[in-house]
Amino acid sequence: MWSKWLAALLALALLAPAAAQEEDGYDLWLRYRPLAGAERAAVLRQARELVAPALPSPTVQAALAELRRGVQGMTGLAPADGKRARAGAIVLGTPASLPPALRPTGLDRLGNEGYVIRRIAGATVIAAHTDTGLLYGAFAWLRAVGTGVAPHRVDERSAPRLQQRLLDHWDNLDRSVERGYAGESIWDWWGLPGVRDPRYIDYARANASLGINGTVLNNVNAKPEILTAPWIAKAAALADVLRPYGIKVYLSARFSTPLELNETATADPLAPEVAAWWRRKADEIYRAIPDFGGFLVKANSEGQPGPQDYRRSHADGANMLAAAVAPHGGIVMWRAFVYAAENPVDRAKQAYDEFQPLDGRFAPNVLVQVKNGPIDFQPREPFHPLFGAMPRTPLMLEFQVTKEYLGYATHMAYLGSMFEETLQSDTGHAPGLTVARVIEGAQAGHPTGMAGVANIGSSRTWSGSHFDQANWYAYGRLAWNPQGSSRAIAREWVAQTFTRAPRALDDIVVMMMDSRDAVVNYMTPLGLHHIMGTGHHHGPAPWVAELARPEWNPVYYHKADRGGIGFDRTASGSNALAQYAPAIARRYADPATTPDTLLLWFHHLPWDRPMPSGRTLWAELVARYDLGVMQARGLRTRWAALAPFVDARRHAEVAQRLDVQVEEAQWWRDACIAYFQSVSGLALPPGSRPPARTLEYYKALRVPYAPGHG
Amino acid sequence: MWSKWLAALLALALLAPAAAQEEDGYDLWLRYRPLAGAERAAVLRQARELVAPALPSPTVQAALAELRRGVQGMTGLAPADGKRARAGAIVLGTPASLPPALRPTGLDRLGNEGYVIRRIAGATVIAAHTDTGLLYGAFAWLRAVGTGVAPHRVDERSAPRLQQRLLDHWDNLDRSVERGYAGESIWDWWGLPGVRDPRYIDYARANASLGINGTVLNNVNAKPEILTAPWIAKAAALADVLRPYGIKVYLSARFSTPLELNETATADPLAPEVAAWWRRKADEIYRAIPDFGGFLVKANSEGQPGPQDYRRSHADGANMLAAAVAPHGGIVMWRAFVYAAENPVDRAKQAYDEFQPLDGRFAPNVLVQVKNGPIDFQPREPFHPLFGAMPRTPLMLEFQVTKEYLGYATHMAYLGSMFEETLQSDTGHAPGLTVARVIEGAQAGHPTGMAGVANIGSSRTWSGSHFDQANWYAYGRLAWNPQGSSRAIAREWVAQTFTRAPRALDDIVVMMMDSRDAVVNYMTPLGLHHIMGTGHHHGPAPWVAELARPEWNPVYYHKADRGGIGFDRTASGSNALAQYAPAIARRYADPATTPDTLLLWFHHLPWDRPMPSGRTLWAELVARYDLGVMQARGLRTRWAALAPFVDARRHAEVAQRLDVQVEEAQWWRDACIAYFQSVSGLALPPGSRPPARTLEYYKALRVPYAPGHG
Repeated sequence: MWSKWLAALLALALLAPAAAQEEDGYDLWLRYRPLAGAERAAVLRQARELVAPALPSPTVQAALAELRRGVQGMTGLAPADGKRARAGAIVLGTPASLPPALRPTGLDRLGNEGYVIRRIAGATVIAAHTDTGLLYGAFAWLRAVGTGVAPHRVDERSAPRLQQRLLDHWDNLDRSVERGYAGESIWDWWGLPGVRDPRYIDYARANASLGINGTVLNNVNAKPEILTAPWIAKAAALADVLRPYGIKVYLSARFSTPLELNETATADPLAPEVAAWWRRKADEIYRAIPDFGGFLVKANSEGQPGPQDYRRSHADGANMLAAAVAPHGGIVMWRAFVYAAENPVDRAKQAYDEFQPLDGRFAPNVLVQVKNGPIDFQPREPFHPLFGAMPRTPLMLEFQVTKEYLGYATHMAYLGSMFEETLQSDTGHAPGLTVARVIEGAQAGHPTGMAGVANIGSSRTWSGSHFDQANWYAYGRLAWNPQGSSRAIAREWVAQTFTRAPRALDDIVVMMMDSRDAVVNYMTPLGLHHIMGTGHHHGPAPWVAELARPEWNPVYYHKADRGGIGFDRTASGSNALAQYAPAIARRYADPATTPDTLLLWFHHLPWDRPMPSGRTLWAELVARYDLGVMQARGLRTRWAALAPFVDARRHAEVAQRLDVQVEEAQWWRDACIAYFQSVSGLALPPGSRPPARTLEYYKALRVPYAPGHG
Repeated sequence: MWSKWLAALLALALLAPAAAQEEDGYDLWLRYRPLAGAERAAVLRQARELVAPALPSPTVQAALAELRRGVQGMTGLAPADGKRARAGAIVLGTPASLPPALRPTGLDRLGNEGYVIRRIAGATVIAAHTDTGLLYGAFAWLRAVGTGVAPHRVDERSAPRLQQRLLDHWDNLDRSVERGYAGESIWDWWGLPGVRDPRYIDYARANASLGINGTVLNNVNAKPEILTAPWIAKAAALADVLRPYGIKVYLSARFSTPLELNETATADPLAPEVAAWWRRKADEIYRAIPDFGGFLVKANSEGQPGPQDYRRSHADGANMLAAAVAPHGGIVMWRAFVYAAENPVDRAKQAYDEFQPLDGRFAPNVLVQVKNGPIDFQPREPFHPLFGAMPRTPLMLEFQVTKEYLGYATHMAYLGSMFEETLQSDTGHAPGLTVARVIEGAQAGHPTGMAGVANIGSSRTWSGSHFDQANWYAYGRLAWNPQGSSRAIAREWVAQTFTRAPRALDDIVVMMMDSRDAVVNYMTPLGLHHIMGTGHHHGPAPWVAELARPEWNPVYYHKADRGGIGFDRTASGSNALAQYAPAIARRYADPATTPDTLLLWFHHLPWDRPMPSGRTLWAELVARYDLGVMQARGLRTRWAALAPFVDARRHAEVAQRLDVQVEEAQWWRDACIAYFQSVSGLALPPGSRPPARTLEYYKALRVPYAPGHG
């Protein structure tokens, strides 16, 4: 095994430097690899020259540069700079700059960021109302060609369904990244503003290719220094790099900043000196960053300061900050992820309890940012009950793209299907009111948005592994269109990132679509959740029961005992179900009508309860863990067969991680079964292998120096 | 300025991906860029095919791979695999494998690692006694051609003058790097042993190209976990990658490891259970890493545990560990960098006081590792008095390649000249007994070695900046030959890394040779030392006086007062001079015969003391600070003029850092002059500009989140 790998690498070393480096993953889905024969000819025919408005803005220059890069990469020839539109030209233009004959249909109701691509008189016309729309259109043309659409057939009209499409970086000022598994922060805070890594440009290109239009630079667990002059200058330097790509910069703000900087005597949001400080601070930031996006705030959660420290509400705190940025057109994103040490209530209920009563109390430029589920980015959660329950409040959906609870960057887990599962969940509050429709503002003319906790770092692959790039990609595409299909997005990504060979493409997509279910099965099947190792959240630890706060202990979540397993969230238990719309609540109130994927999330059931499969719950649990391990093995087997279709380096790098995933899936399965068996006292179902080691062995395992501790 | 940079980057973005990436610095000095015309033809003529012994070992395969990579890179054509030696072939062979007619002269006394390159019958014969020698010879041929030697003229015989040529990584198990300014550790400890970054191979290639044959993987401030089974497996995985390149793996060991792992009741080196534990641990390590190099130990220094905790000597501690690794052929490197909180003696004297009396007391497989100077890697120090003073003890020289005290990776400071300055220092203990001759074992048949604290990280440039790569290069070349010329090494490096265009090459070498003097002048001229900011060691802080330990305070080192400035280390002061050989001590005892570069290191002198320049000491100090700023500006001006000779990306990246360096040189100059003026009470010499801000301003500056805090 090992020597095989060494041989592979020595083989690699035989290649010329360029060749050896070209498939290290850095190019993401923007690889623009050489085409051959008819495909190459077809691109050449349609991209002989590029025509743009006179005096192109930096944004249009970026669009032209990307088209040039793409065409040159695919054909080996750079398109010429054309002066006038004609057959074989790609023409970028706005209604103002395009000659009437070239103005495509469909420009109406396209909004500021939408684009139209049409073939007119042999030319490819990319039209939009803004330069950013043109940039998105240029990337759309490259994506279409990159996924195999014949260049003369590209015909597309698209506009984003959400206004704010953001990445949240949980990046600290010392360059560590909380829950980051892709190396240190890409922000070289120390070097900024003087030292400006060209990588920032590639970051901007990748995000613009997806339509991501904002980035929160620093961790929601924010430090006061981020709002001091030296750091504002650093953020401004980044804003200058990102601006041409249509990306605004946002900052996470610590609520007690003025107090901690000793510039006010309190952080009470209703104290005039505090409001005045924030207004001055906002003015200072906007002088340096005229298009600054606004603040993201984590308040009164997990020990962070907030308005409740002064007996004020979340609305009081958010509205005070909103007033400071409103004159500049900024927004405040206020996180609903709150739970309090003192609060004995089911943790799953606390966000709703605190926020739902505040519906309608927030300023118009505040968005309440709600995680996909009520606990915390688990491999599977039901949708958050706040969606649909705050019709008078703009709700922003927060996904976690970095895999804190799903095997870090080592395990393959395509999250597109998980995102889609949440987005397509029917809230039950109105006919067809899915989570996607809620965040699209179906209930009102709200500002809208989606946030993804970034999985981006200094790793050469950006995301810590080749397949984790797909989660960045899928997040961005779904932020543009929350109605999108995760499978179609996977196909798009594979075609651009690995191969368009039909069979190989299909196989890789199948792997991706299975991968997250595999993780759910070998970690937390049947609705189990939060039984991971303490703090680092890596590996199984269902036995942990001694931590100070009840909701820090896995036993709090699975409630396994001699009699059964699961968290009763029905009326006979915490009644978290009551937070959902009646139709949903009714369905989940009965184990018989609760999908087995969420069974133990809502119900505490006896081990011998018969399941639809005919097995008992205990046997079903064991079967799911076994299935998860088999699925992980299946990923490895399928990938091995794909060697002919993937370059040696990336194939080897993925294969190494799949080996680790199989080992760790087995670890999860064995440790959880050993523990739950010790609780249930039941024998293993016939034919299922006993755990490789004793429960004590698994309990004694430690993983020091795990990454991602912010 | 800024928009200029943005334009430059947008311009960059216009290039095709390959082009845009090819000069990001990752290829180091192993770029093998295409040659043209006669040069290309000459290489093709001499490298038509490669001939190697049958069944080449992984090491010979690596040599062949590198020659292939180099020839293909330079000519576009890969050499064929030749079966028999003939004109135009490159023949790798040992005396055993080479036909008599091709056995070159000069193979005798070449040792295990030396090589000979000779032209025989039109073939280029690379001969050595071992495969590692052949690998070094292959790199030597590529270096010769890369520096412009006509391929048919390459004729070289070389053998290393030191046995252990090591890099010490101060890399922590959480992937942070103490005093690291090039990003996080290249060792992905979390992923190992399963995930093996191909970058490890490029690390090995770069080091093998210099003859570096060992690497200490972890920080001298070591954690017990590094010696536990999971981490031994990680180290073994790295050893497997590095082995084919002739590089052995070493580990830093925490002296109290068995006690802290609760596997012994004490760490007393004379306790049988402790010695037995270390023997068992060594056996365990050697089972996983048969060619494990040995341990590096920092004991009883800066709070690290050690034998003195049990009233044992450094020799007792080192010899106990040495006995554990001796049966396996391992060594122990025991650091002499010690100073103790309780010790009121001049810090510069403590290492000598503790170690010199132990001369001859160490086991034969122990090397005492001594820093270049008696304090701590300052921009300039006199050589360490232990060199030449322990004739019966193998002394290993420790240089710091990472620039803890010389502007991190931002400032340009070529350290080759600093290394040469130490190596060529005459110890005065015997005629011609320079530091270089001491570590070469001139006084006895000792094991010999040199250690460099690595400046390598995950940064794409490896070293945090393009020019810091030169310090890695110079360290490696001087470890191979401590008699080498830092200027010649700089020329070599520039030719391979930037350009062989004569004028440009000369200009860059001039910049490099001036750069460290510039840093000395704007930071610590005339022998000043350790007046940097507390802890992070970035920026000026000569005023700091309140820290707990006296030797933590800059005032301890400069001793400036109304009367004068400098540390009296003569008989009237700490008499550290007495630790040097009489001839040296005599010369440095008199300010008149002390080189002005070390004047205030050894003497406390009145401000009005007349200097050779005719200025007073005060005026001279100000003049040196002014000179330093001028030199920094000069670096920037020279570099700007080199734009036509350097690719756009690397030129811009260096230019950005030089801008920062000029700003920070001014900061140093202004802050130090403001402070020393407040102490001396003297007016600025006529014509010299007053500091831009008040002393209070400089005192109030803080640099939170500075990198390199381990």
